[in-house]
Amino acid sequence: MVMINIDRLCARINALAEIGRVGDTHGVCRLAFSDEDRLARDHIAQLMHTLGLAVSVDGIGNIFGKRAGQTERSPVMTGSHIDSVRTGGRYDGTLGVAAGLEVVERLNELGIDTERALVVAVFANEEGARFQPDMMGSLVFQGDLDLVQALDTIGIDGTSIRDNLRRIGIAPTTRTPDKAIHAFVELHIEQGPVLERTGATIGVVEGVQGISWTEFTIGGSSNHAGTTPMSMRRDAAFVACDIAVFARRLCSAIAGNQLATAGSMSVFPNLVNVIPSKAVITIDLRNTNEEQLKLAERRVLAYAKDAAASDGTTLDVRTLARFEPVSFSPQIMSRVARSAATRSLRMHRMPSGAGHDAQILARMCPAGMIFVPSVGGVSHNFNEFTRPDDLEAGAMVLWDVLLELLNERDPASTAGI
Amino acid sequence: MVMINIDRLCARINALAEIGRVGDTHGVCRLAFSDEDRLARDHIAQLMHTLGLAVSVDGIGNIFGKRAGQTERSPVMTGSHIDSVRTGGRYDGTLGVAAGLEVVERLNELGIDTERALVVAVFANEEGARFQPDMMGSLVFQGDLDLVQALDTIGIDGTSIRDNLRRIGIAPTTRTPDKAIHAFVELHIEQGPVLERTGATIGVVEGVQGISWTEFTIGGSSNHAGTTPMSMRRDAAFVACDIAVFARRLCSAIAGNQLATAGSMSVFPNLVNVIPSKAVITIDLRNTNEEQLKLAERRVLAYAKDAAASDGTTLDVRTLARFEPVSFSPQIMSRVARSAATRSLRMHRMPSGAGHDAQILARMCPAGMIFVPSVGGVSHNFNEFTRPDDLEAGAMVLWDVLLELLNERDPASTAGI
Repeated sequence: MVMINIDRLCARINALAEIGRVGDTHGVCRLAFSDEDRLARDHIAQLMHTLGLAVSVDGIGNIFGKRAGQTERSPVMTGSHIDSVRTGGRYDGTLGVAAGLEVVERLNELGIDTERALVVAVFANEEGARFQPDMMGSLVFQGDLDLVQALDTIGIDGTSIRDNLRRIGIAPTTRTPDKAIHAFVELHIEQGPVLERTGATIGVVEGVQGISWTEFTIGGSSNHAGTTPMSMRRDAAFVACDIAVFARRLCSAIAGNQLATAGSMSVFPNLVNVIPSKAVITIDLRNTNEEQLKLAERRVLAYAKDAAASDGTTLDVRTLARFEPVSFSPQIMSRVARSAATRSLRMHRMPSGAGHDAQILARMCPAGMIFVPSVGGVSHNFNEFTRPDDLEAGAMVLWDVLLELLNERDPASTAGI
Repeated sequence: MVMINIDRLCARINALAEIGRVGDTHGVCRLAFSDEDRLARDHIAQLMHTLGLAVSVDGIGNIFGKRAGQTERSPVMTGSHIDSVRTGGRYDGTLGVAAGLEVVERLNELGIDTERALVVAVFANEEGARFQPDMMGSLVFQGDLDLVQALDTIGIDGTSIRDNLRRIGIAPTTRTPDKAIHAFVELHIEQGPVLERTGATIGVVEGVQGISWTEFTIGGSSNHAGTTPMSMRRDAAFVACDIAVFARRLCSAIAGNQLATAGSMSVFPNLVNVIPSKAVITIDLRNTNEEQLKLAERRVLAYAKDAAASDGTTLDVRTLARFEPVSFSPQIMSRVARSAATRSLRMHRMPSGAGHDAQILARMCPAGMIFVPSVGGVSHNFNEFTRPDDLEAGAMVLWDVLLELLNERDPASTAGI
C-alpha cells in the first residue's frame, strides 16, 4: 500500500500556520480576502507551480491547480479552503488543501500517470466570517451564487469583496477552470467530538447538516434606565437576549439533533444606564433533517415577533445564509469505508455538523468527505489539534479514494459498489 | 414676585447644546473629560467670570462659581453637571447649571445682596458613561471617594482620568472650594414620564432610588457552532442573555418599583458561527427601598451563579457603582412646595428614578431637588425636551427657594417648616 509522507504533510500545514498566526498561540486569523489570506494564497499558488500544476484563478478568487491526466475525461477534484475565522486553528480547511498537494507530490514521486486529471482546489471565503454567506467560493464556482452579486458583498468592516480583490491584487486568469467534474472528495478535520468519543480514526461522512443563519435587528427606544417604568420600556437588548435564550432552549424540543447559537450580538448605545435603542443578534440553527430545521426556524421567528410585539420594538429579519441538509454520494462513502477497512483504520459513519465546500460541489458531481478526529472536539479555536497519526490516516484514505476515481473510466462514479 | 428671564435661560441652554451637538439632532455627546466636555466647561467658566463670580476648580475638575454674601456664613449651593451620555439631550444637567447662573444674573440685575454667598457648582462626570462610578465629581467633593483613586479610574476607552485632565489642560485652582455648605438645591428635568402623566409642572423630589450597577464577565469556550453538541457547550453569550432576561423578569416579583436594565453587552469573538468564549454584560438595578434592592441584587447574583455553573462557564462579578436610596431634606421639600403653591404651579411629590449629585451633597448638608417635566418621559436620548414654560416654572421655584436659604441666619435649614 502506498504511504503518504506525513512529515512533509505536517511541515506544510505548520508552514501555512505561520501566515496569520495569532501571537504566541497555535492558531491563525486569516479572514477571507485579508492581507493574511493573500499571503497564504500566494504560498499555495507558488507550491502548486513547484509541483508542476497548471494554476488558474476564477472571478471570486478560487484557486485550481491541475495535474494533467492521460485522457480528456473530466477531472477528479479534491481540496478545501485556507481562509479562517478570527480565532481559527491550523487544520480547519488547510488539511484538505495540503493533503491534496501531498497526493500530487506522491503521484509525481512515484511517476504515476492517471486516466483523469487531478485538480486541487482552494475555495475562497469558505468561513463566511467576514463576508456572508459562507462557502461563497464554491457557490460561485458551482453556479448558484452570481459572481457579480458575490463581488458586491459588503463585509463586517464595510468594504466590498470587489474592493478587497483589487486591494490585494487578485484577478482571474485567462485559463478557465474545469466545470465538468468527475467527482469531488474533501479531507477535513471533524471539528467536533464524535470521532474521539467513538474511538474512530476515519469519519465516513454521510452528509451535512442544514444551516440557517438569521440576523435579527431590534429597534427600541433609548431612554434613562432609572426613570422609565418597566411597563413603558421598548428595550431592544432585552428582546435580543430573549430570542437568544429561546433559541437555545428550543433545541431540546426539536428532533434531529437541533443546534442553536447566538454567536454575534451588539447593542446601541451600549451604556450601563441607557435602555438600548437597537440590538443586532444572529441565530445559527442547524439540523440534519430539513423539516425539523424549518420547524425550528418557524418557532424562533414566531417567538421573535411575539417578543418584539410585546415590548413594542420593531423587528427586521434578514437571512444571512441557508443551506438544506445534503447527502453525499453513497459510492464515495463506500470507497472511503473500503479504504479504511483495507488499512485497518477504525471508521464511523456520521453527518457533518459544519458546512463544507463539498456540500456545494455535491450539486454538480458525486461528492464526499473524509473526517479525521479533532482532539477534544475543539475547532474555530486557537487550540484546534489533530494528531499526526490521524492526519496520516486521513491522507492515505484520500489517496486511495482519489486513485480509484482518477483511473475510473465510467462517466458516473458507480464502480466498486 | 420676581420673574426669571426665560428667553435668556433658553438661549444659554441652546448655546451649550451647540457644543458636542450630534449631527442634525437636538442632542449632544459630551462624555466626561472629552474635548467636547472641555469646550463646554470653558464656556461656563467664561460665563461665570462675566457674571462676576469667583471661580475655583478642584482636583477632579468640579467648577465652583461663587457670588459673595454679606456675611461669612456658610454658602448656599446650587448647580448640576454638563457632561452627557453618548446619546444625550440638551437639558439633562445643563438646566440646573444654566438656571443657577440665571439666578445669579437676576440677583446682579436687581442689585440684591444676600446674607450668605451663593455658589453655582458644575460637578464633573455625573453620568459615569465613560468613567465609573457616576456622580464622581460630587463624591470626590463630598469626600466619600478618594481623589487619587478617582484620578486613576480607567475609562471605557482604556485611558485614565488623570491622563485626560492633563490632555485637556484641567488643573485645580489655588482657591479652595467651600466645604461647609448651608444647603444644596438642584433643578433638573425629571427624565421620566411621571410629571407629564400626572399633569404637574413641579416635582417635589422626596429622594433618590438606590442604584446598583454590576458587571458580569462570563468565560466559556469558543467552539464551532455546527459540530459541538448542545450538551457539551460552554456558551458565554447564552449565560449573559439568560442573566439579562432573568433580571428583567425579576422586576415584577420585587416590591418597591424595581427596575432592571442590561444596557451594555459585548461578546467575543462575535462571529455568527462561533460559540462565544467571553461575554460581558452590565445589570443596572434600582429601587426606592434598600431592602428590596438588596433582595434583587441577591437574586440576580444567585441566578447568574447558577446559570454559569450549569453551562460550565466562569463568572466574574464586579460592582461598578452602588448607592443606597436617599431621602432629601423635608425642610427643602416644604420650601419647594410652598413656592409652587404661591406661584400657582401644580406639583407632585415623587422619588427620583435617576441618580443626581444632590444625593451625594445630602451626605454633607440639607439637600433637595426640583423636577420639571420631560416630554414623553424621554431622556438620555437626542429627543429629550422640556417646554420653555416648564423650564421657567422650575427656575422661578429655584429662585424662591435659594433666596430664602440665602437670607436664612439659622445654622440648620429649619426655618419656614
